[in-house]
Amino acid sequence: ARPRVGYFFTGKTGSELLTEKLKKYTVQEFQSIPVVVNEDVSVYDAICTMFLEDVGTLFVVNDKALLAGVLSRKDLLRASIGNQDLREIPVHIIMTRMPNVTICYKDDLLLEAGQSLIDRQIDALPVVKEVEHGYEVMGRLTKTNLTKALVELGRDQIM
Amino acid sequence: ARPRVGYFFTGKTGSELLTEKLKKYTVQEFQSIPVVVNEDVSVYDAICTMFLEDVGTLFVVNDKALLAGVLSRKDLLRASIGNQDLREIPVHIIMTRMPNVTICYKDDLLLEAGQSLIDRQIDALPVVKEVEHGYEVMGRLTKTNLTKALVELGRDQIM
Repeated sequence: ARPRVGYFFTGKTGSELLTEKLKKYTVQEFQSIPVVVNEDVSVYDAICTMFLEDVGTLFVVNDKALLAGVLSRKDLLRASIGNQDLREIPVHIIMTRMPNVTICYKDDLLLEAGQSLIDRQIDALPVVKEVEHGYEVMGRLTKTNLTKALVELGRDQIM
Repeated sequence: ARPRVGYFFTGKTGSELLTEKLKKYTVQEFQSIPVVVNEDVSVYDAICTMFLEDVGTLFVVNDKALLAGVLSRKDLLRASIGNQDLREIPVHIIMTRMPNVTICYKDDLLLEAGQSLIDRQIDALPVVKEVEHGYEVMGRLTKTNLTKALVELGRDQIM
């Protein structure tokens, strides 16, 4: 017999269902478009790109378009207060370099990627695809994406 | 009669309960400690404070310790690529100034504060207390706090 309430009985409580829904969210459902610069561009040009594209993190690729590193606002700010000519320094000097970059894949669970952001104390992860000799950058997962996920989940009354 | 399932029937589905729990989260449960500088410190010193304290946003106060403005990494980066002596410029020249600062209160709903962060495209809100002639800064609510809230909610099986 079904319980006399207005929803279909699945044997699970609704809270399990909502938690399971949250637990099934994947990176690709929330990721943003990545903004990429070549490793030979100057720090000055990278800062300009960051303002033009209005992102907090740039991904750096080599001449084969494979992920070489990551540039955060913090990296660029640190470089900019050194007494150096920012037009003369290429970004590969100051970036966080592979293999020290934390990556994720589009099918990764959103919560695991969120845990990575927290654990590593970083603002964004490159969403990558493994290819021969390296990784192509397919997306960008940020704390903004995770904040949006939380706000949407709160708005989402219906499962 | 109670339905024949192993949980107490409240007349609400569990998903409503979990959503309600999320909807009841308040700012004070997730906020961080604020990092504050006086409006007369130099941009250079503010950047150093940001690195020492390892935060992405500084709150600026006047001589009465009332909120005067906000400094983001983006504001500091913009100032640092201008050809100016960062030791000579006080932060009140470059900060986002009251009343253009988006604020929140400790009893505000976390989801509403999250919506503010998204809508205003900012990284952090000052958590303030209203006093005579202005606001005191009590806390700092960031996208990191909201990312943590999401990850914890996903881990939280039991209500």
